[in-house]
Amino acid sequence: MTFWDSLTVGEARILGSHIFAADDIKRFAAKFDPQPFHLDEVAAKGSVLGGLCASGWHTAGVCMRLNVENQVAFAKDWIAAGNRPPRMGPSPGVTNLRWPKPVYVGDTITFTQTLTAKRASGSRPGWGVLEFTTLGVNQHGETVFSFDGAAFCGTD
Amino acid sequence: MTFWDSLTVGEARILGSHIFAADDIKRFAAKFDPQPFHLDEVAAKGSVLGGLCASGWHTAGVCMRLNVENQVAFAKDWIAAGNRPPRMGPSPGVTNLRWPKPVYVGDTITFTQTLTAKRASGSRPGWGVLEFTTLGVNQHGETVFSFDGAAFCGTD
Repeated sequence: MTFWDSLTVGEARILGSHIFAADDIKRFAAKFDPQPFHLDEVAAKGSVLGGLCASGWHTAGVCMRLNVENQVAFAKDWIAAGNRPPRMGPSPGVTNLRWPKPVYVGDTITFTQTLTAKRASGSRPGWGVLEFTTLGVNQHGETVFSFDGAAFCGTD
Repeated sequence: MTFWDSLTVGEARILGSHIFAADDIKRFAAKFDPQPFHLDEVAAKGSVLGGLCASGWHTAGVCMRLNVENQVAFAKDWIAAGNRPPRMGPSPGVTNLRWPKPVYVGDTITFTQTLTAKRASGSRPGWGVLEFTTLGVNQHGETVFSFDGAAFCGTD
């Protein structure tokens, strides 16, 4: 079976979980998002967010790492099982990137990716387009992160 | 004049410029996007991207830092000029996040933000919604990064 044919629309895959530690939250914020509620517990307590929480871009970065690690592990198993390597193209971007709730220090966020559509590419023979929704959910079951993405994938 | 009234639709503000150094590209990638073309010059040369380039999430993080720094500096001047502090709400997310071209090692990316719309909030008296487009352009004039965002802003 080709990698393309093995993919089922509606199927979710768990990318992994991550616990957001205070040091990591502050280190990321100092470099990329130096707002008080990402940098300092006391300032965060008095802010609209009520406590130290991760930059939304930090959450996105952690999700990306888990996604890459998951893809590498999957491809390794897929090839070890005697299949041809999956061919994936780079992503041109994402849309509807949302942070509906803060990620507070100590929260465990579990990221999942669900394939929402697959279609042959009109312009690139031998390639198709995968569409997917990625979610981050905290230990209380609340969605804290989501986006929709698309990527080229070889069909043969 | 209120901060809200001082804002003109169509007005662009330069957030700042950043040169992407090899060490920074690799350090970010090792933590958040461990793909070969973000981690290693030789592997990157042989990849579809043709050379070491920054993770798209790294570009987003740099843009966010410049944005925060720009806002802090602006608010300081605004208050020093005798005005009331601007009231900005957190952003619920962004859309149309695009990386149309790679950011290669040594590239200088200049980020700008253009206000595309402002409207009073129907649900929150005393607040309005600002819509803006953020662009990152390299030293050759090519757009390498863009997204559309919205934020609540006090109107009085």
